[in-house]
Amino acid sequence: MKNFDINEDPHRRYNPLINEWVLVSPHRSKRPWQGQNETVISDTLPEYDPTCYLCPGNVRANGMVNPDYESSFVFENDFAALKQEEIAFEENKNETFFKAKPERGISRVVCFSPKHNLTLPEMSADAIENIIHTWQKEYTDLGNVDYINHVQIFENKGSVMGCSNPHPHGQIWAQSSLPTEVEKTQSNLKAYFDKHNKTLLEDYVKEELKLDERIVIDNDHFVALVPFWAIWPYETMIVSKRNVNKITDFTEAEVVDFAIILKQLTTKYDNLFETSFPYSSGIHQSPTDGELHPEWHFHMHFYPPLLRSATVKKFMVGYEMMGESQRDITPEKSTEILKNQSNVHYKRLTK
Amino acid sequence: MKNFDINEDPHRRYNPLINEWVLVSPHRSKRPWQGQNETVISDTLPEYDPTCYLCPGNVRANGMVNPDYESSFVFENDFAALKQEEIAFEENKNETFFKAKPERGISRVVCFSPKHNLTLPEMSADAIENIIHTWQKEYTDLGNVDYINHVQIFENKGSVMGCSNPHPHGQIWAQSSLPTEVEKTQSNLKAYFDKHNKTLLEDYVKEELKLDERIVIDNDHFVALVPFWAIWPYETMIVSKRNVNKITDFTEAEVVDFAIILKQLTTKYDNLFETSFPYSSGIHQSPTDGELHPEWHFHMHFYPPLLRSATVKKFMVGYEMMGESQRDITPEKSTEILKNQSNVHYKRLTK
Ligand SMILES: O=P(O)(O)O[C@H]1O[C@H](CO)[C@@H](O)[C@H](O)[C@H]1O
Ligand SMILES: O=P(O)(O)O[C@H]1O[C@H](CO)[C@@H](O)[C@H](O)[C@H]1O
Repeated sequence: MKNFDINEDPHRRYNPLINEWVLVSPHRSKRPWQGQNETVISDTLPEYDPTCYLCPGNVRANGMVNPDYESSFVFENDFAALKQEEIAFEENKNETFFKAKPERGISRVVCFSPKHNLTLPEMSADAIENIIHTWQKEYTDLGNVDYINHVQIFENKGSVMGCSNPHPHGQIWAQSSLPTEVEKTQSNLKAYFDKHNKTLLEDYVKEELKLDERIVIDNDHFVALVPFWAIWPYETMIVSKRNVNKITDFTEAEVVDFAIILKQLTTKYDNLFETSFPYSSGIHQSPTDGELHPEWHFHMHFYPPLLRSATVKKFMVGYEMMGESQRDITPEKSTEILKNQSNVHYKRLTK
Repeated sequence: MKNFDINEDPHRRYNPLINEWVLVSPHRSKRPWQGQNETVISDTLPEYDPTCYLCPGNVRANGMVNPDYESSFVFENDFAALKQEEIAFEENKNETFFKAKPERGISRVVCFSPKHNLTLPEMSADAIENIIHTWQKEYTDLGNVDYINHVQIFENKGSVMGCSNPHPHGQIWAQSSLPTEVEKTQSNLKAYFDKHNKTLLEDYVKEELKLDERIVIDNDHFVALVPFWAIWPYETMIVSKRNVNKITDFTEAEVVDFAIILKQLTTKYDNLFETSFPYSSGIHQSPTDGELHPEWHFHMHFYPPLLRSATVKKFMVGYEMMGESQRDITPEKSTEILKNQSNVHYKRLTK
């Protein structure tokens, strides 16, 4: 009988953050593709677009005028999924099939730059530091609202990720409940912390640094790696080396290093297929429920859909929806490919 | 303070099948859309396509020739995500971060018809019965393989769902482990059964039939409904009225009624936006691990991505990936819209 070779043989890997498995099929990367191709957005956007509702000085859908902002700019989402209004409600604890609860929250949009045609990898590290400071301020302000217990910072980049405007921006959805994925993660982080008195991610990052098989970049304070259990072809996670609970606990040196690793990682992404690399990213950190959460350890997920080129993505469909996530290329192979990308953005080289 | 109105106010709903929540934002359906549009596949495909690797008599990528099949046709997937080979492996039970196990399995493709341009709603109920019999045979044959404990029957329909060939076909991935979603479902079904000595879905369907707010279609043996906790805009579930454990337990009357409800539901789907409606569907039923599973109750999920038109889909991205699934239109509103669609396919009316 053949001995198990993780680089060759179909296998499942376990994700200890959410207690789920992923099916890995290394041999399947040679599959031909005759399916849907994504369209690539033109690389020649103007610095200012008079029809863009995020550019400085322009009018938004609700009639409000954006200020002439010079770095970042935050406003309430005009079509928020959450509302701030308090709703009277009596819970029926015995309900099994028709359990529903009103949910309060605040949704904001964070413009990363006044320039319509910039994205994170093309910004200066200084400009990215400014975004980090904005995230810190929002985490604090929103977290201080009495009924807000969780602040989800995220970005959808690229039309293939449902982003309807190329102007660089992210979002924040702050709400009273812990969202499903956060609750799952918290319960696994907590079980680990209760047992080891250290965070799961502190120990995981140490092991990964020792093995050095899935590290894409690291600096003094952060590491960007392809998790052993990654589901998306080029999924990565930026994790703090120190046990940082939340973004507002960053030292200034950590702000500097986080900006650098964000710039480098997104530059490598763009260089991979010489395209503005689409992804959804999001920060997982301590909830703002007023409790101590020593189990939480700052990390940022990047879920990019592209698989083989700027136009061919991985579809998480039938089997993945009914069964479990599935990937072809191994996380180790993806790491190698990402690691080998230059830290200089391809647009600067081809100019 | 305003009283909770489930048709108007943002709220979360609980999914007892997988123990997760969904965020519902009824007020958000008015949001304008400037984002990505899907391309619609031409409605005028030929009945036979000489370049299609699924048409009768054609040669597949691996050089094999398809027989001149007349109803359905099953073959091993030429680019299978699973392999049948047995792999030697020693498990390290103490591993936390790098847990991996080889996985054995068999992947098959099920052609639904020799005609390249047919889809389920355009087939006769008789032809659909034949597909159901094929699924029964495959469930039995694959389930009887000693190392196979789970048989996942599914279909990806439409290029937006990663389907690379419009020839009507589904897939079956059979494997030794229970996939993540199935395991989650099983543990919730089992907890309910152990407590009530009835299946969760038997009780749920009874309640839904009484309320009649989310029933799209029903007949003597099946109901097609929008689950109270649906995440996709037009998500539905076909559930057997009797407590049927697996597809091979169907009576002949159940085969007949399942074919009819499949045809009617997919016809309503096509009629909704007058397009060949994309979705991923999949059957959840008893595993084939040789154990008794009284907790399982046959059901088939339909996860269609379209939201507002043939070209505008719902994106499950940033917040949904980091936080939890989110929907705009309520399940009750979706039910009403689907219910009002004709059972006669739009192509028959416009001819
Ligand atoms: O096997 P196919 O049809 O080539 O591939 C399709 O379905 C599979 C199973 O859901 C997915 O893993 C693929 O991403 C998708 O493109
Ligand atoms: O808020 P946006 O950018 O209009 O919308 C986008 O992000 C949201 C949050 O992930 C999703 O719910 C939407 O489906 C997506 O299109």
